[in-house]
Amino acid sequence: LEDFLVIDALFGIGINRPLTGLYEKVIQYINAALVEVIAIDMPSGLTCDDAPQGDSKVIIRANFTLTFEQLKFSLLLAQNAHFVGKWIVIPIHLHPDFIENETSDYFVLEKSLIKSLLKPRAKFSHKGSFGHALLCAGSFGKIGAAVLATKSCLRSGVGLVTISTPKIGYSIVQQSVPEAMAIVDDNENELSNCKDDVSVFNTIGVGPGIGTSELTQRFLNQLLSQSKNPMVLDADALNCIALNDSLRDLIPQNSILTPHPKEFLRLIHAQQPLSDYEKIEQQRQFSIENKCIVVLKGAHTTISNSNGQVYFNTTGNAGMATGGSGDVLTGLLTGLLAQGYEPFDAARIGVFLHGLAGDLAAEIQGQDALIASDIIEEFGAAFLSIQQS
Amino acid sequence: LEDFLVIDALFGIGINRPLTGLYEKVIQYINAALVEVIAIDMPSGLTCDDAPQGDSKVIIRANFTLTFEQLKFSLLLAQNAHFVGKWIVIPIHLHPDFIENETSDYFVLEKSLIKSLLKPRAKFSHKGSFGHALLCAGSFGKIGAAVLATKSCLRSGVGLVTISTPKIGYSIVQQSVPEAMAIVDDNENELSNCKDDVSVFNTIGVGPGIGTSELTQRFLNQLLSQSKNPMVLDADALNCIALNDSLRDLIPQNSILTPHPKEFLRLIHAQQPLSDYEKIEQQRQFSIENKCIVVLKGAHTTISNSNGQVYFNTTGNAGMATGGSGDVLTGLLTGLLAQGYEPFDAARIGVFLHGLAGDLAAEIQGQDALIASDIIEEFGAAFLSIQQS
Amino acid sequence: LEDFLVIDALFGIGINRPLTGLYEKVIQYINAALVEVIAIDMPSGLTCDDAPQGDSKVIIRANFTLTFEQLKFSLLLAQNAHFVGKWIVIPIHLHPDFIENETSDYFVLEKSLIKSLLKPRAKFSHKGSFGHALLCAGSFGKIGAAVLATKSCLRSGVGLVTISTPKIGYSIVQQSVPEAMAIVDDNENELSNCKDDVSVFNTIGVGPGIGTSELTQRFLNQLLSQSKNPMVLDADALNCIALNDSLRDLIPQNSILTPHPKEFLRLIHAQQPLSDYEKIEQQRQFSIENKCIVVLKGAHTTISNSNGQVYFNTTGNAGMATGGSGDVLTGLLTGLLAQGYEPFDAARIGVFLHGLAGDLAAEIQGQDALIASDIIEEFGAAFLSIQQS
Amino acid sequence: LEDFLVIDALFGIGINRPLTGLYEKVIQYINAALVEVIAIDMPSGLTCDDAPQGDSKVIIRANFTLTFEQLKFSLLLAQNAHFVGKWIVIPIHLHPDFIENETSDYFVLEKSLIKSLLKPRAKFSHKGSFGHALLCAGSFGKIGAAVLATKSCLRSGVGLVTISTPKIGYSIVQQSVPEAMAIVDDNENELSNCKDDVSVFNTIGVGPGIGTSELTQRFLNQLLSQSKNPMVLDADALNCIALNDSLRDLIPQNSILTPHPKEFLRLIHAQQPLSDYEKIEQQRQFSIENKCIVVLKGAHTTISNSNGQVYFNTTGNAGMATGGSGDVLTGLLTGLLAQGYEPFDAARIGVFLHGLAGDLAAEIQGQDALIASDIIEEFGAAFLSIQQS
Repeated sequence: LEDFLVIDALFGIGINRPLTGLYEKVIQYINAALVEVIAIDMPSGLTCDDAPQGDSKVIIRANFTLTFEQLKFSLLLAQNAHFVGKWIVIPIHLHPDFIENETSDYFVLEKSLIKSLLKPRAKFSHKGSFGHALLCAGSFGKIGAAVLATKSCLRSGVGLVTISTPKIGYSIVQQSVPEAMAIVDDNENELSNCKDDVSVFNTIGVGPGIGTSELTQRFLNQLLSQSKNPMVLDADALNCIALNDSLRDLIPQNSILTPHPKEFLRLIHAQQPLSDYEKIEQQRQFSIENKCIVVLKGAHTTISNSNGQVYFNTTGNAGMATGGSGDVLTGLLTGLLAQGYEPFDAARIGVFLHGLAGDLAAEIQGQDALIASDIIEEFGAAFLSIQQS
Repeated sequence: LEDFLVIDALFGIGINRPLTGLYEKVIQYINAALVEVIAIDMPSGLTCDDAPQGDSKVIIRANFTLTFEQLKFSLLLAQNAHFVGKWIVIPIHLHPDFIENETSDYFVLEKSLIKSLLKPRAKFSHKGSFGHALLCAGSFGKIGAAVLATKSCLRSGVGLVTISTPKIGYSIVQQSVPEAMAIVDDNENELSNCKDDVSVFNTIGVGPGIGTSELTQRFLNQLLSQSKNPMVLDADALNCIALNDSLRDLIPQNSILTPHPKEFLRLIHAQQPLSDYEKIEQQRQFSIENKCIVVLKGAHTTISNSNGQVYFNTTGNAGMATGGSGDVLTGLLTGLLAQGYEPFDAARIGVFLHGLAGDLAAEIQGQDALIASDIIEEFGAAFLSIQQS
Repeated sequence: LEDFLVIDALFGIGINRPLTGLYEKVIQYINAALVEVIAIDMPSGLTCDDAPQGDSKVIIRANFTLTFEQLKFSLLLAQNAHFVGKWIVIPIHLHPDFIENETSDYFVLEKSLIKSLLKPRAKFSHKGSFGHALLCAGSFGKIGAAVLATKSCLRSGVGLVTISTPKIGYSIVQQSVPEAMAIVDDNENELSNCKDDVSVFNTIGVGPGIGTSELTQRFLNQLLSQSKNPMVLDADALNCIALNDSLRDLIPQNSILTPHPKEFLRLIHAQQPLSDYEKIEQQRQFSIENKCIVVLKGAHTTISNSNGQVYFNTTGNAGMATGGSGDVLTGLLTGLLAQGYEPFDAARIGVFLHGLAGDLAAEIQGQDALIASDIIEEFGAAFLSIQQS
Repeated sequence: LEDFLVIDALFGIGINRPLTGLYEKVIQYINAALVEVIAIDMPSGLTCDDAPQGDSKVIIRANFTLTFEQLKFSLLLAQNAHFVGKWIVIPIHLHPDFIENETSDYFVLEKSLIKSLLKPRAKFSHKGSFGHALLCAGSFGKIGAAVLATKSCLRSGVGLVTISTPKIGYSIVQQSVPEAMAIVDDNENELSNCKDDVSVFNTIGVGPGIGTSELTQRFLNQLLSQSKNPMVLDADALNCIALNDSLRDLIPQNSILTPHPKEFLRLIHAQQPLSDYEKIEQQRQFSIENKCIVVLKGAHTTISNSNGQVYFNTTGNAGMATGGSGDVLTGLLTGLLAQGYEPFDAARIGVFLHGLAGDLAAEIQGQDALIASDIIEEFGAAFLSIQQS
């Protein structure tokens, strides 16, 4: 068998139980061979939507998967990456009615959708038309998170940005981002006391680099208590909530939470690791129960809303797995929300655009050398790429 | 009527009373139809120069207006945007004498005019030939306004720039703009005491981010009291004047004031919202009465002088509706004034160039991602674009 | 005569006395006419090398001068700019021996000369091979001068740069120029006490933004007293010397002094304004008497050495008449000297390269928007332009 | 003989004793002549692998050396540069078995090798997949070294970077590199006390700009004592070890040491200058004895491992002989190590990539104007150049 391609199309679509017998032997034989394997529609043994039952050795390990007409749920999960390899969608001209009538809670984020969601800037607008965002970010040693979120927010299209940071961050943010205004906490090193009236801001984003001290938990409690509008909660704000369940009930409805997988597991107090299937189901449940939008970050970031809908993102690359990338997303989402985008639209636009900007940055810098600031620099090109598509 | 274009040219030019009867019915019918509407010369029901009388429902809502020979006043106003749509001027070869003999206080800023106003840099000049500008800007949390104005001023062609800022801003401005010199107030957080002899500066620009505290009002009083040359007054300097009428009398003749609409309403103590027609008339009156130039910022910024002339700007875009954009304009105007440009010329050059630079920046960054610093970066390209036109 | 070009070639070369009679009348007639005037070789009435005698009204005011074979001294002077207009050199194929045998102390800096002076970087060199420069610059409010000189010095090809600055400048320079090391004065706001052993540095450049206080004069005295190698003296260092004659005797032989015209007049204690002819003669005498190189900055910067030779620079433009441009030159010259270039070579290379970089920057930014940092950014392109010519 | 090329191929390969008699006379005659000399395979009198015996006057001084099939050791050494001139390798189609069977400890770093060592970034990775690097760098006046190393490390592909610096450096690094986190020493001006638990970091890089005070030696002792993983030791860390032999025993096995030649001589307590042959042999011995990788920096940086293998680098140029270039290498190596590269692979990739980035930067800036930051800016292009080769 060596030196040959193997085309895997043995079992058709829809087989939903573990493969045994001859099937199992053939699969193990193929997987043991040092050949390129191309799976047709799905790698045999892997189901479209459900977690594989039984032994993962009885699943084809393909190098490429040519899937029919539409992406399948299982193809997008990290845990299946070594079965799926690279995938391509091949149109087979199913009747549109068939597709229309298939109901699903799972969707793929596409450029055409994002384009339709983006609002043109009205000619006779002014900076007030595009909202005023407040970012609460940074603590001693992590002031850069505030800088990145602020820069990113400014390039989202928002009208005005104010950054709230501990005293130690004042000069740093004012100098790094002259377009932003700054307010400071009484505390030198961390956010401790939300003394300002935050009702003047259209939207608040909180979390990057703030730490999880008790003082900062207090700050977050004060902030959430006086906030009615949907906000963006990220990173240590989520870790604070995980540490302090009373905070969770204060999250304004339709807020956007942006955990990475570890933060999400803390947030739901998971006692053990979850499969990707379980994680996404937990994400849906969390969104439904807490009436919020969850952006679960990963290679295919998933975005869920309180109706239980889940969108898989298709932009982005492994070069974005670098410090500060998440702070950039938080700033962008906060800026979109402040402009009046519906929270679920803001989340979908922001996640797609962030990944697209990362892809454009990787064309210039490659994935290895890419840093978070590079992503912000490509926001403009990413907006134009969507609008001109 | 659906799916068809409607050409609106029913009523000719110059009808100056509300439309009624059949006219009214036809207009309402057209407006209710889901079609593209093209107005010829003017949308029917809208007059060229005067505010519409009566019911705004009896005005055609066009998607495009093809206007004859010259732009009309009403086409440039925000309040008419939903009647006018996009406009294009179509030459119909009126006899030049006719145009010459039409007297008007209203003009459109055109590139050819700006080109004629720009002075070439003499070969045997030195930095002293191009003046020394002083900018008074910044307060705690708003030091970025000082940075943006200073950077912008430096790229205006001026010879030297000094920035006066509270102590908290010292390191920030020195590091952000090495080409500028700095002087500091005794006060840590705000401009409070104008102790330096400002007569060594050719021009002063004051206002970005200074706040309106009583100490800062005192500073402004001291500054205005010792200033004889035309200066640039922006933002909080205007808000201080609105709060303290005695300051208004100290404004040096031919100074340039750059309010946005809300600041302008404060400045004239308006008790109620004004229509765009009223606002521009108030602007003219203010210029005449106070012998100053008013730059009323908007999609079509209007520039008025003490003779009652008003220029409409045609450059700029909605991407410039972002924090710091006004600080950039203040720096630019101050720099032009310091070089010896007549104030009305400085205002017209500065406003046009600022908008053009914003348009060039939007070609690169798009309107959404555009930030104020991007505008400064395009000053060079904008100067060249005018000089090489 | 109107609407015609006038070709001015009436009087031939070498007439060295004021023109009178018919000549005078013709010249005045031509100057009064609103026509383009082209002078051949020299505008009539202007001599090649000597100051015009008598009435400047009896000199043709040309728009263009087509001069034969070689540039003439008088064509390069600011005071003759309105007689000369733009000039072009036209070869007339004089016999090379003729040119060779013409002895002159005046030369024009040409790219081919600079190319021959530039040393290639040896493959097996290390940062020590390229010297260690010390810059002494900055005072409260003028720390930017230190930043610009340091950045410029680093791009000169030098191996290492240390900046000596008052305490207030420490963070600013360390952050603005990570490639440079910093040492600080005991004084917060100005250089006051030269306590470090400066003999470890190959070259010292002193002056940008240091002020002229007595403390700083003391610093300069200490610095000069322990320096044996040629150094670069600029700006306030020259002003200190003008204030304190005892400092002049301490200037190490073959040092480079870089005054602008006003600084030069102070330096020679001129009691009255000088013509350009007198100024350059004073420059030569100063170089000869003080055994130093003088770089007298202007549209055509002149560089004189202790042998009385004078080079006119031909690069640069009026966009460089902007704050910080001189600090950039000082950094560059210091860096070239530290690499082991002969001082007169360093001066000629530096002045030419600085102007060329300014010309390249003006192609991008135009002359109006050009700032000093732009010049530094083009050093690389300027080096390559010379090396690849 | 003048005006002619001389082809030097008199003596064949492998002559391993000093040349005398007629040979000597011919060589001296050729060297004295003002002609271009091309050596075939090797300049006569120079041996491939061993130091020349006897009088260096009896070695041809070639302008070019056309060497057969493979580079020779002696051609890469600084001390032979004036014999070798520029070299080119000419294939003569030796039988591959012949080359295979030649055993040698000396290798040349080639792009194809580096390409094979680079790991692709897995799609389903996250920032944790790429490690967390700690850099310990900077002291008063040399904080820029910390900034450069940190920026460089971030562009290496690492997931997270933390910089440990004295207090004086805190604001500078946080502002210069927002993507990095910072921890600070108790001491204002230098690293003195390693109080943090460094076991959370995958890799540590230490040395740039830290100085060699006793306090800093203590810091280094503490750091080394708690480190088990291979780390990167540079600059003053090596100088500390040279001053304090007890530190050497604490170096974790397989660490990478990056001395320049003077630092290396200090490290081995050399009493007198060494020839290049001796230096490289000492480097090998040091690597073998101390079970570490030594990167001896120079025009052809040599990389040795504990098996006694030595790789010569072929990228880089004399423009990189500029302050901060070494700090950039340290950051890059630390970042590669943190990603899980084998130390010898990290050293080889890092040295090659650093030189390649410098070559790309020199194409833009030329060698003279090149500064260390320029190298970092080209990391992305260098990665892509290797990956796409």
